[in-house]
Amino acid sequence: MEPKNIVKSWPEAAPRLIAVASGRAPADMVIRGGKWVNVHTREVLDGHDIAIAEGRFAAIAPDLSAAIGPDTQVIEAQGRFMLPGLCDGHMHIESGMLTPAEFAAAVIPHGTTTMFTDPHEIANVLGLAGVRMMHDEALMQPINIFTQMPSCAPSAPGLETTGYEITPEDVAQAMSWPGIIGLGEMMNFPGVIHADPKMLAEIAATQAADKTVGGHYASPDLGAPFRAYAAGGPADDHEGTSEADAIARVRQGMRAMLRLGSAWYDVERQITAVTQKGLDPRGFILCTDDCHSGTLVNDGHMNRVYRHAVACGADPLVALQMCTINTATHFGLERELGSIAPGRRADVILTSDLRTLPVEVVIARGKVVAEGGKLLADCPHYAWPESARQTVHLGKRLGAADFRVAAPEGANTVTARVIGVVENQAPTRALTAELPVTDGRVDPDPARDIAQIALVERHRGTGGVVNGFVSGFGYKGRMAMGSTVAHDSHHMIVVGTDPEMMAACANRLGQMGGGISVWKDGAAIAAVPLPIAGLMSDSPAAQVAEAASRMVAAMADCGCTLNNAYMQHSLLALVVIPEIRISDLGLVDVTRFELTDLFQ
Amino acid sequence: MEPKNIVKSWPEAAPRLIAVASGRAPADMVIRGGKWVNVHTREVLDGHDIAIAEGRFAAIAPDLSAAIGPDTQVIEAQGRFMLPGLCDGHMHIESGMLTPAEFAAAVIPHGTTTMFTDPHEIANVLGLAGVRMMHDEALMQPINIFTQMPSCAPSAPGLETTGYEITPEDVAQAMSWPGIIGLGEMMNFPGVIHADPKMLAEIAATQAADKTVGGHYASPDLGAPFRAYAAGGPADDHEGTSEADAIARVRQGMRAMLRLGSAWYDVERQITAVTQKGLDPRGFILCTDDCHSGTLVNDGHMNRVYRHAVACGADPLVALQMCTINTATHFGLERELGSIAPGRRADVILTSDLRTLPVEVVIARGKVVAEGGKLLADCPHYAWPESARQTVHLGKRLGAADFRVAAPEGANTVTARVIGVVENQAPTRALTAELPVTDGRVDPDPARDIAQIALVERHRGTGGVVNGFVSGFGYKGRMAMGSTVAHDSHHMIVVGTDPEMMAACANRLGQMGGGISVWKDGAAIAAVPLPIAGLMSDSPAAQVAEAASRMVAAMADCGCTLNNAYMQHSLLALVVIPEIRISDLGLVDVTRFELTDLFQ
Repeated sequence: MEPKNIVKSWPEAAPRLIAVASGRAPADMVIRGGKWVNVHTREVLDGHDIAIAEGRFAAIAPDLSAAIGPDTQVIEAQGRFMLPGLCDGHMHIESGMLTPAEFAAAVIPHGTTTMFTDPHEIANVLGLAGVRMMHDEALMQPINIFTQMPSCAPSAPGLETTGYEITPEDVAQAMSWPGIIGLGEMMNFPGVIHADPKMLAEIAATQAADKTVGGHYASPDLGAPFRAYAAGGPADDHEGTSEADAIARVRQGMRAMLRLGSAWYDVERQITAVTQKGLDPRGFILCTDDCHSGTLVNDGHMNRVYRHAVACGADPLVALQMCTINTATHFGLERELGSIAPGRRADVILTSDLRTLPVEVVIARGKVVAEGGKLLADCPHYAWPESARQTVHLGKRLGAADFRVAAPEGANTVTARVIGVVENQAPTRALTAELPVTDGRVDPDPARDIAQIALVERHRGTGGVVNGFVSGFGYKGRMAMGSTVAHDSHHMIVVGTDPEMMAACANRLGQMGGGISVWKDGAAIAAVPLPIAGLMSDSPAAQVAEAASRMVAAMADCGCTLNNAYMQHSLLALVVIPEIRISDLGLVDVTRFELTDLFQ
Repeated sequence: MEPKNIVKSWPEAAPRLIAVASGRAPADMVIRGGKWVNVHTREVLDGHDIAIAEGRFAAIAPDLSAAIGPDTQVIEAQGRFMLPGLCDGHMHIESGMLTPAEFAAAVIPHGTTTMFTDPHEIANVLGLAGVRMMHDEALMQPINIFTQMPSCAPSAPGLETTGYEITPEDVAQAMSWPGIIGLGEMMNFPGVIHADPKMLAEIAATQAADKTVGGHYASPDLGAPFRAYAAGGPADDHEGTSEADAIARVRQGMRAMLRLGSAWYDVERQITAVTQKGLDPRGFILCTDDCHSGTLVNDGHMNRVYRHAVACGADPLVALQMCTINTATHFGLERELGSIAPGRRADVILTSDLRTLPVEVVIARGKVVAEGGKLLADCPHYAWPESARQTVHLGKRLGAADFRVAAPEGANTVTARVIGVVENQAPTRALTAELPVTDGRVDPDPARDIAQIALVERHRGTGGVVNGFVSGFGYKGRMAMGSTVAHDSHHMIVVGTDPEMMAACANRLGQMGGGISVWKDGAAIAAVPLPIAGLMSDSPAAQVAEAASRMVAAMADCGCTLNNAYMQHSLLALVVIPEIRISDLGLVDVTRFELTDLFQ
């Protein structure tokens, strides 16, 4: 499939850019009379025009009326600020439950014109082929979406079975694709620290291609392990949460990526490295990492992060550098985008106020793509093949028996391990509970907030179901809640109080081709269809956000009292975060990185 | 020829770097107890150790004694500053009249560990083959010498004949060589502004290779022509001389290279853009462009530029960024060098004072290469072939008749065009003089400071001699002064008062294989042999500087009163700088870019 939205390279465009700049030819577009926000010098320069041709900046000068011909589109800036389109330094499109096209459609009106995206979730479901599909749809969009090749699928080899595995050979192959900008976050930081040959081979393939290795060092230890990780090659990190984290990363020559996602709040405590400690800001970058569709619809995207950074005390021009030129430089793209300067892709925001940043006009590659919050561009859809739309392979129709927990032979009571969900935290607690045995069966105990959890294999149709117990959701009555978004291997997680309803929920997800389904008293009460890989919808963000909102309400209707209850649900199989999780291979003790028994 | 001084790539070194950083293996070298000058954060951090392995930094931390094994070289910093080795952002090795090896030997004790060098002069003499020789000797050195592929040979097509011409195909081919970092200064700025397909093809080949296009915009016009040049792709420029020049370049997304060479003084007036106007310093880079061997021996190299920048009011850490990380980032090398951070080439200077910068110890790629101003490393010589050592092809033995200026048929007096040398300026003045005719011959007139000048063809052995007149040197008596350094096509320029002595001087240069020769009263009184391409010596800088110093004294002995007399001499064929010059094709009117007659 030929990408629709192609931009000529600088050398291809150069003859016209030169002709326009020297006054020998008219521009395609001229923006007149604005304030040139210059992120190279960190200045605002009043009274400038911008001439654009071939989707790139041709010239910026006080008067470019000579570049206006009969076919030139003229935009009156009316004294507004003209700033570069915003860049998201690291993010996962799948977190919005949207395809790249629908994600782009949602963020363009917010002024995002460039994203560096790691399709880690689809890599677990569909491997390299899935990454290529995301990459190809990304290249079809009217904005710049660069792909970071996922590095760690599975996240925890030996503790889970992904749909596909990513190998160093996959990484080397992907480095030649046109939209690949580097390696996605190297989450296996113990692997780097211990010089795991597979992880080092992935890094080496990326460095050999002169591309950027994304980091992910999720430990508070800034001593020898951190230094060893830095010596391994990751060039950035978005896992810092404290000022010391940010400073340590930049001192070691990494870029500190400060994150404000739907559920990440890591800017405020780190940006003081610049606002209070006065460090050189060039090493700091803003990003979202994960944004839900609701955030995109209701709050914004990188404009939200920018405003937050300014609210945290950052100079607006410094904050702007952190989501434009700093990002571009980091990825080796500073002659391609990230500033309003000759030759760069003509990505511009017009705004009346630099602090509150109302995004009034968005121009991408020289075309008006949004105005007053309204999308004006086409975001074409990739022709997702059946292999991507039919990814929920249960192997059989599941029944209540698949969700019954058999007690050990002859036991009257058992001491079961229970996954304890902790309000507002990603780590779980390893709890235990005495549970009675009835007819050789161990039942959940909603009265003590102990529900069942099942990990349903869905990649190979093995019919495998791993059962366990979970506490913390507060579910009451007969219910079930299931999701094929189940980080990181994305099988299916079903939590419920009733085996029959859990089976019905799982079967419904199989019919839907993936997504989220909530059941109460024998009936489905909410659904979020995610037909692409069981992770994403190709419907508009507003629709997905509304369905997700109804799903959250349905969880509450079943008695759930948690904040971010759905996120907690979807992370229960994330076998890299302590203390205890569930995978297709069994219960996992994530303090020891080993499988453990359900019963003590 | 296999380069001798090779450094393992980061991924090749990574397993050991990680092992050292994590405390599992000893380092090759540990520098103990210094102040870590961090150019990423712009901080000085007291009390740090540096561990080095495989020629790269493994770790920087308060205590790395665990990395000291029985074979680890330990260097006590004793509280001194530990800063990255200095980078020269743009320079011509040939200007030192030294080979890359001898140039490196001269600058290493000054703390220069990285140079970006454009072998433009040898390209005019030996074409791509000569560039490759420079490139190969550069890669043999213990410091980092990256080659910028020369872009403009000839500088002025149609007005001169070079030894070889550089084509876009040459540029495309060179981009695949291991040491090529980009395109050398694009001097043909009118060509870019008028979209000359050949110039744009060279730029396109460089951009397609994701490398850096060097700029050279030698005009004070910062309007449309400058913007058109910027739109063409050059990414830096060292031709600025005023604060406005520097600011304009950085605003347009170019890097302003501030130059302090032997005869360039462009830092003081431009650095105020940072020190007074407060612009973001990341777009500013320090460089030398041209340094004579005498400067290297007596004054320094990049340490001289750094001290000067500090003396001009720059914060020492900002000045240091301008000759370390800014330079590295510009050339896409910030993960390779330019800072003391894990994975980078271990290039370090130890100094007791950040302002005066005494260069006490120099470490390059993890080895001590200089201490107390004394070179401790081997700088290997390339086996220069005969084709590079025998480049003065006169075609015949020249005689006085070749240097006699024939008058027009029947004339008694003539009005001759005279090249007027202007003290301390590169441009010449187009003078005229009435000269008498004797025996059909026009003689010089030393009493009126009118000497003869001859451009002797030396690339193809045509025997061609173009004669003319020059004023301004002040030569008296019978003398001749000749040089095969004759920018940019590097034929041979002989200036003298006596045809016989001019012939003797030219013939002597032919015997020497090139260089400089000064004659007085029938005898050679000084010589600087430059056997490599007639441009460079492979003797140590001190010897060359001493010979050059004697040569300058000899010129004075012949009556010359100019400052920088030798530079003036060597620029008289530079047919891109007004007003009048000489080439192998005749006298050139550089205000009109056309050949002109000797007699009006």
